[in-house]
Amino acid sequence: MKKSLLYFQSGGPTAVINTSLYGVIKEAKKHPEIDGIYGAIHGIEGVLNDHLIDLRAEDDETIELLQQTPGAALGSARYKLSKDIHHEDYQKIVATVKKHNIGYLLVNGGNDSMDTCNKLSILFKEIGYDCNVIGVPKTIDNDLFHTDHCLGFPSAAKYVVQSLQDIQVDNLSYAKGKVLIVEVMGRHAGWLTAAAALLPEELKPDHIYFPEEAFDLGEFGEIIAKSYKEKGKAFIVISEGVSVDFPNENVRVDSFGHKQLGGLAARLGDYVQATHDIAVRPIEFSLMQRAGTVHITPVDRDEAIRVSAHAVKAALSGQSGKMVTINRGVTKAGKYTSRCGLKATSKVANEEKMLPKEFRDDIHYGSGQLMRDYLEPLIAGDLKLKSVGGVTSYAKLKKVRIQ
Amino acid sequence: MKKSLLYFQSGGPTAVINTSLYGVIKEAKKHPEIDGIYGAIHGIEGVLNDHLIDLRAEDDETIELLQQTPGAALGSARYKLSKDIHHEDYQKIVATVKKHNIGYLLVNGGNDSMDTCNKLSILFKEIGYDCNVIGVPKTIDNDLFHTDHCLGFPSAAKYVVQSLQDIQVDNLSYAKGKVLIVEVMGRHAGWLTAAAALLPEELKPDHIYFPEEAFDLGEFGEIIAKSYKEKGKAFIVISEGVSVDFPNENVRVDSFGHKQLGGLAARLGDYVQATHDIAVRPIEFSLMQRAGTVHITPVDRDEAIRVSAHAVKAALSGQSGKMVTINRGVTKAGKYTSRCGLKATSKVANEEKMLPKEFRDDIHYGSGQLMRDYLEPLIAGDLKLKSVGGVTSYAKLKKVRIQ
Repeated sequence: MKKSLLYFQSGGPTAVINTSLYGVIKEAKKHPEIDGIYGAIHGIEGVLNDHLIDLRAEDDETIELLQQTPGAALGSARYKLSKDIHHEDYQKIVATVKKHNIGYLLVNGGNDSMDTCNKLSILFKEIGYDCNVIGVPKTIDNDLFHTDHCLGFPSAAKYVVQSLQDIQVDNLSYAKGKVLIVEVMGRHAGWLTAAAALLPEELKPDHIYFPEEAFDLGEFGEIIAKSYKEKGKAFIVISEGVSVDFPNENVRVDSFGHKQLGGLAARLGDYVQATHDIAVRPIEFSLMQRAGTVHITPVDRDEAIRVSAHAVKAALSGQSGKMVTINRGVTKAGKYTSRCGLKATSKVANEEKMLPKEFRDDIHYGSGQLMRDYLEPLIAGDLKLKSVGGVTSYAKLKKVRIQ
Repeated sequence: MKKSLLYFQSGGPTAVINTSLYGVIKEAKKHPEIDGIYGAIHGIEGVLNDHLIDLRAEDDETIELLQQTPGAALGSARYKLSKDIHHEDYQKIVATVKKHNIGYLLVNGGNDSMDTCNKLSILFKEIGYDCNVIGVPKTIDNDLFHTDHCLGFPSAAKYVVQSLQDIQVDNLSYAKGKVLIVEVMGRHAGWLTAAAALLPEELKPDHIYFPEEAFDLGEFGEIIAKSYKEKGKAFIVISEGVSVDFPNENVRVDSFGHKQLGGLAARLGDYVQATHDIAVRPIEFSLMQRAGTVHITPVDRDEAIRVSAHAVKAALSGQSGKMVTINRGVTKAGKYTSRCGLKATSKVANEEKMLPKEFRDDIHYGSGQLMRDYLEPLIAGDLKLKSVGGVTSYAKLKKVRIQ
């Protein structure tokens, strides 16, 4: 009997999360053994609430445009499933997949999503329901283990390098400039912040702060004061995930119990202004770093398509509880290449791959060549996007609901 | 006797201010009656301190790259000249131009710079020194009178439309999103903020706040609370120049007596969080909107070159105390075109062209078509920039000092 495929998106969007959706649809359509091709609206919530749409109902032009559509085209969610797979949520999930005869379930997300993959594959085996669950790695934090990098990271990193270059060149225009404190995303891992290592020597920041390292507020102020005294300006790049002990501060947490991030540069700016009386321009790359369509890199797009196609094929071939991995290689001509692999989600879930100490030390005390070698092949080149009136077009899905 | 040409940059950089420098060098080299082609380092400060460089010493490749170089390649300044042209500063300026036999002085800047142009052209006439002063309009605020628009505005506006689209699509990914409060540059005029009118209908902000209009903090909070209640998210675009009365706030001013801007979105976010207990993501487009090289528009580049060449030719033809203007036209095929004109800097200086009420009303209550018709031709199309390793190349001037 033919089975249907269900795909959903989870966590923070990236510039290529919808390219994964594109890749899934394109690949799934090649396989006559797949019946329906469905998407869940707002991630796992769409599965819990039986809110699925028919991806075969979308026209070709819309599907093409998914490759340059920011956000999560199906809607995302940050819903945390219970640790207990006997929780009623899991019964709801089983009801939905059974109702729609889902035999292939693809989850596009980060650490938490791989944990969801893992739980669901265990559950389906436990109840003897035949449904293969495959994870598609996605996070600009780039902190998933067992893959060279994560989909979305290259495009976000390109945004970071390009924007740091632009704003630092701008700041150098003044004899007396400002203190730039630039905040880059990255909850616990400094990969995205480390993209700053690719700046040319004359634009290098005074210091780059990673969440993997202890932060000393007093020392931070002194680095800035010294640079400002010498050069009339300063340039600091800091990960949003750096833990700073400000006095009298309340910590807000989200539904995962994660600390709410953002606004760190502004608070550090206030501190420098108050303690050293120096003009600061705090800059947060905010949503632009993950949503900036014009920064999508050719490698990121190509891999988003291939990895997602690989996920479809893996599910069809009977694999389950696996995440597709990206394995880096080099062609005979010395060029970057990659091939897809699979890794058990039990090995991937809820672990975080930090920026290695050797990378950090090389950035602080060396030339940053380790990070450059790692990142440069991922951000090389440009894509031509479809535009109307000077602004990129994006996909608007019809979202025909499945009853 | 041959005379030399001196060019300098002033005020906040734009994405094409160095394209003007490119245009000046290219045009000046065509005229054998021009002796030296010089640039002043850090704007008027370079003239005051006799810090000039030889632009003929720069190689062709570097000059080409000026077209995609952010910041002010010669360095900028925010030095305010005295109103009294008998102040010693003016004697220093006269000394520098006489020493280097400057017969053509080009000033690339906004309102304040046109005032400088005006004063210097009066001064040179008063003392009988033969030097023609021409202004090259530049401001992302787009607030100079007597020109259809200002160089740098189209590229900044393209950044604003594209980025607003990207981040709003991202925010719509969640059933329960955030309140986006996005701060756009513009000291007194709402032109750049009005670029938000080009968003497609389904992405329209809940409200767009212009500096030309009174701001009511309570009403602002209510608009957000209402939208958040109805849609689980909200989207506000606000100009940095909007005057908000926060209680107990100190106002910082720069050397022009201008209020220091930036950080408005963050403060408004704090207000909404405190009064309505709703999660806010304040976003400031900051330096990225004026320095983002990948958003340079074909029209902005083309006009930066033509306007600057026109400035050289005007100075050579004996004009002085004039700013080059951009006059919009339409080709027989119905396409956008423009030609250069000249206007007395006395008519331009220290006046600000606000966003007209009819534009604002059309954005608030109508379709925004007025702004769309005005802006779309200026941001259409894309340029191919030179890149190395995925990041755009930029010009590094040798800066050979003239003795």
